[in-house]
Amino acid sequence: MGTAASPGIAIGKVLILEEENLDYQKKTIEDVEGEKARLHDALESSKEQLQVIKDKVEREMGNDKAEIFQAHLLVLADPELISAVENKIENEKINAEAALDATVEQFATLFANMDNDYMKERASDIRDVGSRILKNLLGIDSVNLAALDDEVVLIADDLTPSDTAQVNKDKVLGFATKIGGRTSHTAIMARSLELPAVVGVSEILDIVENGDQIIVDGVDGNIIINPSDDQLASYNNKAKEYEQRKARLAELKDLAGETKDGHRVELVANIGTPKDVKGALTNGAEGIGLFRSEFLYMDRDSFPTEEEQFEAYKEVAEKMEGPVVIRTLDIGGDKELSYLDLPEEMNPFLGYRAIRICLDRTDIFKTQLRAILRASAYGEVKIMYPMISALEQLRASNEILEEVKVELKSENIDFNENLEVGMMIEIPAAAMIADILAKETDFFSIGTNDLIQYTTATDRMNENISHLYQPFHPALLRLIKRVVEAAHAEGNWAGMCGEMAGDKRLAPYLLGVGLDEFSMSAVSIPEVKDQIRNMTLEEAKEIAQKALTFSTAEEVEAFLSNI
Amino acid sequence: MGTAASPGIAIGKVLILEEENLDYQKKTIEDVEGEKARLHDALESSKEQLQVIKDKVEREMGNDKAEIFQAHLLVLADPELISAVENKIENEKINAEAALDATVEQFATLFANMDNDYMKERASDIRDVGSRILKNLLGIDSVNLAALDDEVVLIADDLTPSDTAQVNKDKVLGFATKIGGRTSHTAIMARSLELPAVVGVSEILDIVENGDQIIVDGVDGNIIINPSDDQLASYNNKAKEYEQRKARLAELKDLAGETKDGHRVELVANIGTPKDVKGALTNGAEGIGLFRSEFLYMDRDSFPTEEEQFEAYKEVAEKMEGPVVIRTLDIGGDKELSYLDLPEEMNPFLGYRAIRICLDRTDIFKTQLRAILRASAYGEVKIMYPMISALEQLRASNEILEEVKVELKSENIDFNENLEVGMMIEIPAAAMIADILAKETDFFSIGTNDLIQYTTATDRMNENISHLYQPFHPALLRLIKRVVEAAHAEGNWAGMCGEMAGDKRLAPYLLGVGLDEFSMSAVSIPEVKDQIRNMTLEEAKEIAQKALTFSTAEEVEAFLSNI
Repeated sequence: MGTAASPGIAIGKVLILEEENLDYQKKTIEDVEGEKARLHDALESSKEQLQVIKDKVEREMGNDKAEIFQAHLLVLADPELISAVENKIENEKINAEAALDATVEQFATLFANMDNDYMKERASDIRDVGSRILKNLLGIDSVNLAALDDEVVLIADDLTPSDTAQVNKDKVLGFATKIGGRTSHTAIMARSLELPAVVGVSEILDIVENGDQIIVDGVDGNIIINPSDDQLASYNNKAKEYEQRKARLAELKDLAGETKDGHRVELVANIGTPKDVKGALTNGAEGIGLFRSEFLYMDRDSFPTEEEQFEAYKEVAEKMEGPVVIRTLDIGGDKELSYLDLPEEMNPFLGYRAIRICLDRTDIFKTQLRAILRASAYGEVKIMYPMISALEQLRASNEILEEVKVELKSENIDFNENLEVGMMIEIPAAAMIADILAKETDFFSIGTNDLIQYTTATDRMNENISHLYQPFHPALLRLIKRVVEAAHAEGNWAGMCGEMAGDKRLAPYLLGVGLDEFSMSAVSIPEVKDQIRNMTLEEAKEIAQKALTFSTAEEVEAFLSNI
Repeated sequence: MGTAASPGIAIGKVLILEEENLDYQKKTIEDVEGEKARLHDALESSKEQLQVIKDKVEREMGNDKAEIFQAHLLVLADPELISAVENKIENEKINAEAALDATVEQFATLFANMDNDYMKERASDIRDVGSRILKNLLGIDSVNLAALDDEVVLIADDLTPSDTAQVNKDKVLGFATKIGGRTSHTAIMARSLELPAVVGVSEILDIVENGDQIIVDGVDGNIIINPSDDQLASYNNKAKEYEQRKARLAELKDLAGETKDGHRVELVANIGTPKDVKGALTNGAEGIGLFRSEFLYMDRDSFPTEEEQFEAYKEVAEKMEGPVVIRTLDIGGDKELSYLDLPEEMNPFLGYRAIRICLDRTDIFKTQLRAILRASAYGEVKIMYPMISALEQLRASNEILEEVKVELKSENIDFNENLEVGMMIEIPAAAMIADILAKETDFFSIGTNDLIQYTTATDRMNENISHLYQPFHPALLRLIKRVVEAAHAEGNWAGMCGEMAGDKRLAPYLLGVGLDEFSMSAVSIPEVKDQIRNMTLEEAKEIAQKALTFSTAEEVEAFLSNI
């Protein structure tokens, strides 16, 4: 019926969050100053509301979740926006509502048309803030989600960041929305609030009324309205099982990632910014298997300095007790930087990206390597190169790294001289010559997202062929085995940092072929750990052997899903 | 100095083909009818010239080379173009030169901006024809290349199709041009005329004068102006060796593709249209290893009928004595059809193409399979599916084929019930599960162009990363070996139809790992045959074994280039 966006079962009464009627009359006005005063009152009220929301979110959900409200406050304080509205009131002699609405639309369109995802998101921030100001101008009091009397399940077209931010977890049991996918804002917030949610239920607003009883099954993506007694009993059971399982998984936090018979593997997290370390620790990550360094380069006007990078890497290195694998810059492909002019390409995923750029732009590369090396004095830092397809690239990268080490030494700057240097295996050519590459690296981390894409020649973003993007493809299983064996033959370790590492169905296979490190979204760690702790290495090896006998992805998936 | 575009050595006097001065005065005219008459005279003269050229080319170079002049004649007869010029003369009261020039530019720009390579080419046809009409209006007599008194080497900015068409092979010894690459028109025509040519010599027009002596070395891409006696002697020698070698290779035409010790392989040709059969036979091809069926679908407004396809397949099947492997439709990627609306894609090479489209559009696929099956009654026809990445696709394709066979049987239509059915191996996933796929196919043909592209994650058209598109990559050598062995294990044969099959340096490796069929541009067959006939299978096996010991593409290439 919909997309399971956040796990858990919610059973309760429906509260429909209607879209508020923001209709207004466009009017010619004479009292320009009076109209400006109305505008400023509305701006002031909006600011107070946002500040309250922001503080609440910061307190209850953490700094990173509150950032969006900081962004909204910045929009609200934007002198260009405000003076544009004021000028419109003055020059066109129209009321504040009309002047605001037109200006917001203008600004939002401008941003929406920029060829940059960051800027596009700014467009929706501007619209969200614009609606808030308009509501205040119109004197509309929004439903106060923070002060509900009864327990409810929220139903809406979509939830805005402001909506979700006000949610009181004691009263709101879960969400179901008409639009959105697994990565929509509503879905992300629901997971962060740990509330069950199903999104993308296209017919939802047509089939529920306020006060209906509803079951939101965020595990399987089901919605049941006014359930029968049998359904209610069955879902009550399912809810209980889910909660028990969740509690049991939480207890695993400080336990090791090891099989029944004591075979240890490393369960570590993929992170995007230093702020994500908190979630990694909460979920029991023993280290960071993939620190995507791109965040340092995105959403800004120029390259980050060595110092800025050093601070970020050091912060993570100090906060984590275990290893921190920092991947060097992986831009290009679908990730652009406004200040780095990259060529337009017909096939960006097969194009000029990651190490391919860094080996040309050694200035950028060296600055980053210096920062990483310096951070290596503060924790168990490792360096990882992305998108290596040939030994020559690995050698060239290592040569540059050696140059940087010499520089640092001559400057008497501390770093770990024995820091491990590894590479992603995400290109089929690299997987095929893993034995050759293993001789000149300390470790591999298999990047399955790209590896599947190139191995199956299937753009992972292309919906027309998504059935051919097959993580369970026998070719993938074989390549993974090959890579792990090649690493071990040289005494190296092998990890995985693509989505496959966080899929508990694959854990027995990966364990069975000898994978040493599993790096994934922090929230997936407990499930995978549970899977691993419930089997012996011998069992895993048998499963791996059996999995390798199948001919199609469907057969492999069916087998591994039913263990 | 330049790009070797067509092999051979030309030594002779320079004749610079200057770009003619097509300047004209834009004038206001009063005698509209008189101006229109001038236009029609020029159109008539242009038509006569083009007809002469077309007939000459048809006679001397074959129908396909003459097609471009047929296209020019069609432009010349285009009523829309002509009436647009006439209207301009009439409405703006300007002379025919100005009216023509503006109209041609308008039409050409229109075509050039279309998102379709075919239409873009039409723009250059229109400009070429426009220049011819303008010359006739201005009374300019072009150099008559067909009637030169002395032997010359032509030097030009670039040669137009009209220029090359008039070339008299008794007088013109070779070409050198400022612009162009190996696939430019000049290069293609030079190879077809078997005249030595070097293109892309950026400084050429600055360093030669008419009457200079020049050496054009189309083997290595060198140009020497006013050579010393030593240079002359050395190049005379090189020319003689080249001619001897060419003569010797020509003698191989009817000899088998077999090693000294009698190991037979099949040397066959890649073709694009039935017309290419002639070149295949001239070069001693024993069959067609890749018949690209796309030509039937391109440059038209609707899908070809079953009958049209059948006729084309039958023509090739009848003309060739050996096997004819017909590849089913491979559109998408960089090949579009105006009448098939395909989605815009971010990475077309990783997108919706070839069998991926055919398995959705079974109507298109079935029509083609019917046509191929019917043609199988007239020769040794085989079917080959492109872009298979998973066993499910192979099975689905074969099921459709079986349905079509049942249909034909029920209609009492003849076809070869035992025709062989194979697939391209051009996606790494397919190479990795070749053993699985071999169980349900009769043969493989390795498509190296795409296989290299996906294996190295490198768009083969992207100049920024062309150094990473490595045919000699050890990963490729390993994948090829794997595929051939997988085929043999099931008693199947394995061929190759990518560029690598026509590279004589790779022939010993491919022979050594057991490749059964080499399919290439017809012109490459003699060189590869010569290479194969000059070694024993044992030697080839040793070379293959040795080639597999290297770690980089550079090492492999150096080793194989020096055998």
